[in-house]
Amino acid sequence: MKKTITREAIYHSAQSNYSYGYDSETLHLRVKTKKNEVKSVIIRIGDPYIWDAGGCDGGNMNATGGVWVGGKSYPMRKECETEYFDNWIIEYKPDMKRSRYAFILEGYEETLLYTEKGSRELNGDEGDERKLCKLSDFFCFPYLNNIDVARGPEWVKNTVWYQIFPDRFCNGDKSINPINVQDWGTEPTGENFMGGDLQGIINKLDYLEDLGITGLYLCPIFEATTNHRYDTIDYFKVDSTLGDEKTFKKLVEESHKRGIKIMLDAVFNHLGYFSAQWQDVVKYGEESKYKDWFYIKKFPAVDRPLEELDGNNLNYESFGRTPLMPKLNTENNEVVKHLLKVAKYWVEDMKIDAWRLDVCNEVDHVFWRKFREVVKGINKEVYILGEVWHDGLPWLMGDQFDAVMNYPLTEAIKEYFCLNDISGEKFRYMVEENKVAYSRQVGEVTFNLLDSHDTPRMLTVANGDKEKMKLAYLFMFTQAGSPCIYYGDEVGMEGEQGMGREFHRRCMVWEDEKQDKEFQIFMKKIIGIRKEYEEFKLLDNRWISYCCTKEALVYSKGNITILINNSNEMVDVMLPEEIRNEKVFNLYDLTNEELVESVSMEANSFRIFKIN
Amino acid sequence: MKKTITREAIYHSAQSNYSYGYDSETLHLRVKTKKNEVKSVIIRIGDPYIWDAGGCDGGNMNATGGVWVGGKSYPMRKECETEYFDNWIIEYKPDMKRSRYAFILEGYEETLLYTEKGSRELNGDEGDERKLCKLSDFFCFPYLNNIDVARGPEWVKNTVWYQIFPDRFCNGDKSINPINVQDWGTEPTGENFMGGDLQGIINKLDYLEDLGITGLYLCPIFEATTNHRYDTIDYFKVDSTLGDEKTFKKLVEESHKRGIKIMLDAVFNHLGYFSAQWQDVVKYGEESKYKDWFYIKKFPAVDRPLEELDGNNLNYESFGRTPLMPKLNTENNEVVKHLLKVAKYWVEDMKIDAWRLDVCNEVDHVFWRKFREVVKGINKEVYILGEVWHDGLPWLMGDQFDAVMNYPLTEAIKEYFCLNDISGEKFRYMVEENKVAYSRQVGEVTFNLLDSHDTPRMLTVANGDKEKMKLAYLFMFTQAGSPCIYYGDEVGMEGEQGMGREFHRRCMVWEDEKQDKEFQIFMKKIIGIRKEYEEFKLLDNRWISYCCTKEALVYSKGNITILINNSNEMVDVMLPEEIRNEKVFNLYDLTNEELVESVSMEANSFRIFKIN
Repeated sequence: MKKTITREAIYHSAQSNYSYGYDSETLHLRVKTKKNEVKSVIIRIGDPYIWDAGGCDGGNMNATGGVWVGGKSYPMRKECETEYFDNWIIEYKPDMKRSRYAFILEGYEETLLYTEKGSRELNGDEGDERKLCKLSDFFCFPYLNNIDVARGPEWVKNTVWYQIFPDRFCNGDKSINPINVQDWGTEPTGENFMGGDLQGIINKLDYLEDLGITGLYLCPIFEATTNHRYDTIDYFKVDSTLGDEKTFKKLVEESHKRGIKIMLDAVFNHLGYFSAQWQDVVKYGEESKYKDWFYIKKFPAVDRPLEELDGNNLNYESFGRTPLMPKLNTENNEVVKHLLKVAKYWVEDMKIDAWRLDVCNEVDHVFWRKFREVVKGINKEVYILGEVWHDGLPWLMGDQFDAVMNYPLTEAIKEYFCLNDISGEKFRYMVEENKVAYSRQVGEVTFNLLDSHDTPRMLTVANGDKEKMKLAYLFMFTQAGSPCIYYGDEVGMEGEQGMGREFHRRCMVWEDEKQDKEFQIFMKKIIGIRKEYEEFKLLDNRWISYCCTKEALVYSKGNITILINNSNEMVDVMLPEEIRNEKVFNLYDLTNEELVESVSMEANSFRIFKIN
Repeated sequence: MKKTITREAIYHSAQSNYSYGYDSETLHLRVKTKKNEVKSVIIRIGDPYIWDAGGCDGGNMNATGGVWVGGKSYPMRKECETEYFDNWIIEYKPDMKRSRYAFILEGYEETLLYTEKGSRELNGDEGDERKLCKLSDFFCFPYLNNIDVARGPEWVKNTVWYQIFPDRFCNGDKSINPINVQDWGTEPTGENFMGGDLQGIINKLDYLEDLGITGLYLCPIFEATTNHRYDTIDYFKVDSTLGDEKTFKKLVEESHKRGIKIMLDAVFNHLGYFSAQWQDVVKYGEESKYKDWFYIKKFPAVDRPLEELDGNNLNYESFGRTPLMPKLNTENNEVVKHLLKVAKYWVEDMKIDAWRLDVCNEVDHVFWRKFREVVKGINKEVYILGEVWHDGLPWLMGDQFDAVMNYPLTEAIKEYFCLNDISGEKFRYMVEENKVAYSRQVGEVTFNLLDSHDTPRMLTVANGDKEKMKLAYLFMFTQAGSPCIYYGDEVGMEGEQGMGREFHRRCMVWEDEKQDKEFQIFMKKIIGIRKEYEEFKLLDNRWISYCCTKEALVYSKGNITILINNSNEMVDVMLPEEIRNEKVFNLYDLTNEELVESVSMEANSFRIFKIN
């Protein structure tokens, strides 16, 4: 039986993660084919207006009468393998910014021309030329407009973030303690306050600088009533139990002095119950000038005491099922104006460097496009990071966000290193699927994290196994993007939500004797290595696939090779050819080594080698 | 061997033609599977925040600890078959606007759960419940924001357009004839002028109204130097050989009186060589205040006489390879302002009803979003139609155009009816592929056409065969969207480009004896039927697939059934069950008929039956 190419598996689409401008000169074009069916892929591409017989209207018409002298053929490279597909890519610079293209798939016993109108066989006969010139069937990238190109700020690639839950990091000013403040280290609930504040963060900037941190991501600091402060009262005010605008300015200045960027949490999906606007609606009902700021299903918007409200009896839309967070109507012009003023204020007046957008997936795209225009209009170096846990492509095509929180990578790391649920091969596929889900430039500035205020701490997931936790962080720090450490992870803090307690948001442990100093040293070293070597910013991992087992993972980036033994036993790992019998530098141990054929690795250990 | 479902063929993606808001309450979700592999598809969908154990953060976290009581299962319907796929859809109204969902594919010997994270088998055991509650794997439509929903104006669905190439339709005012005007009917070249003008169109409005036309699509009327006027000199002026602003206003008023809408051609990709702005650049070079209005590669922008310029020696970017049309830099704020003022002027002051956007695929998306905001801000009933011949999805997600020119349908009609190149089955697949390429609301207002100033006339493609031409128009008039007749098609005009002549843009034939009156009567009748019966606005064709052969095509819409014998011989066509032995009304012949099992059809004939 003829080995055919599965037509149904071939996929490409216009202006998506399969087809985008990488920069003002370069197109990236991708196609995927069923695994192991295609030996090579050639792209036929060029300017659609260049024909031997003159212009052909951009290839719109069936220009079968002439020969397309504008077109050339180039081999594509296999960008990666995923579970079911081979993924091919070409980086192509069109002379005139305009391209039409099709893919020539070379199978084992047939060759297909894959166009927008489907696949047809190339038979090596004279009929082929006609198919190869029928541009009206071809895909089209009509013109590479610079303004449409997605690009995040360069600085993000070099940044190591540290996420702080403000109430729980450090109390630096007891004079502004919340009423009923608890002793530092009390069991954390959804309700209690520990007194962490901005001065506390300022006090610890030296600590953070020493650790190697170059970016702070702060959970909300705006005036609010809860300890997480996602129920904003006033976006223009720092919560008085955290400090004031002056303290915040000082935090920004002191951070910037140390080369540390500041990212704030923009909670624009909803407002707080105790905001002036919502209270006006509660009080005046349909007469309130703010009634169209929200989605009210029926008046009175609030028909019983707050403590009796729940997800089942609300007369208004809210975040999730939470009475405390009435959803903002971002289709209302006044709301848009108000929020954009907020966006502007913190960037322009308070000099923040990045916005993290809370529950941004539930807010309309029109709003986010305006948000981007305003923010980038003030400072195009501001990083716009969306909280999207699922497929974020609709926000990442250049018109909205620079990146999303890379929870799919978190998930892969968790399953492979911490739960030991999946094989090295499956892990590799998960990492690669995540890569090809977006444009490469988005991957280069993606926000990588192992845990956050919204997840259990990874060490808890790893059942307290610090060696697993090290491998998890090691892997993350060798990946492109912008890695983030959740406060306290670096000293071995654990915790998860449950039984009315929020241990994942517990107070930062500052007592030396309670901090895991050995883990802290590991983190500091790994952060240092990350920052020293440009190789880790490369998006592609060159997997040594025969080594990727449940136990071992081997991959290279540039001249650096990383070996990980993810098992609880000693393993002999075969070395990839490029470093076999080579002299290398061990980046972690700072030693020169002469390698042989394989390396014997302790349980849950790693090596980072750089070829001399 | 177990009949498995081909994993690589299954496809769905977030916020695309596979997942979109149809209106403020309704989601459309689609999935495709390899043909004939899946018996049925069930969607599991619901509000991600409703769990037996309380809120679960929108399903972001691995909520495997509780049961998702927010989720329900609904069967999807098979929207259509295409060449390789079965295409499934559900129209779903989420209670709370928020949805997470996955697809349960029931194959013949296995059942798969298809999620954003891939496919896994459901085994009918207790492990299933866990998979069905693992929302972090599910696809997400986070919130149905009304403002993001694509919707074209309703009136478009009822409109029958007539495209006019202004120089060639009718000369109504000899006093403004171009110099060197040719006698009406002279062989048309790229250079000569025939003297058609706006008064000529006004004079023929009664003719058009009588024909049944309810929309006029005019090729450019702005001041320019060529007979096609795609080389704009001044967007604010009517070309003086066509008339003036007063004549244009009269045309709009007289048209509106007759219920006829007006669509103008916006040529915003490029400006004309003789525009003040370009001439300023030619004259002052780098000192010109307009130098950033264009993409100039090297100064002087023009280094030789116009007649010596060609695609190979231009120092500036232009449309195609045409020196006459320097490309506008729509990333320049002044250009944007200027063009938006133009967009506004013709809508607000001149009361046009629609914009057709020339070469819009080569202009950036940022510009088109602003264009939409401005135009719809003045009048949300304005129809925005893009000239995109290839996949237009990147412009059709609600933020840019309402529709694109439906050339893929043109191509299918051409190949099936006029060239007799493909089977009825292949034709059906082409029609369906075009349908599922976009959201259904886009299909409902798509701009259907058989020919235009950019193509050969369809009658010429059909080798002069008027019976084939009738079938082609018949088919188009029974399809959803907004059908358009290219001026003169209705009286049997032919013509194509070639040998330096542009016969497809020849002068309208007005002499009774040269018009094909029989064809005209056909057209008038078919237009009338189109407008009378709402059924033709339905997007779906209920194909009677066993009847779709190279010879015959049978499909129903609501209570109407259309039968087409596309062969040159008499054919007995088996009737679909729904009308077999039924009493029907013949919409074309206006007769009541009693059908039997089949109907005997003349070569190249058709029937339109409505069940009584």
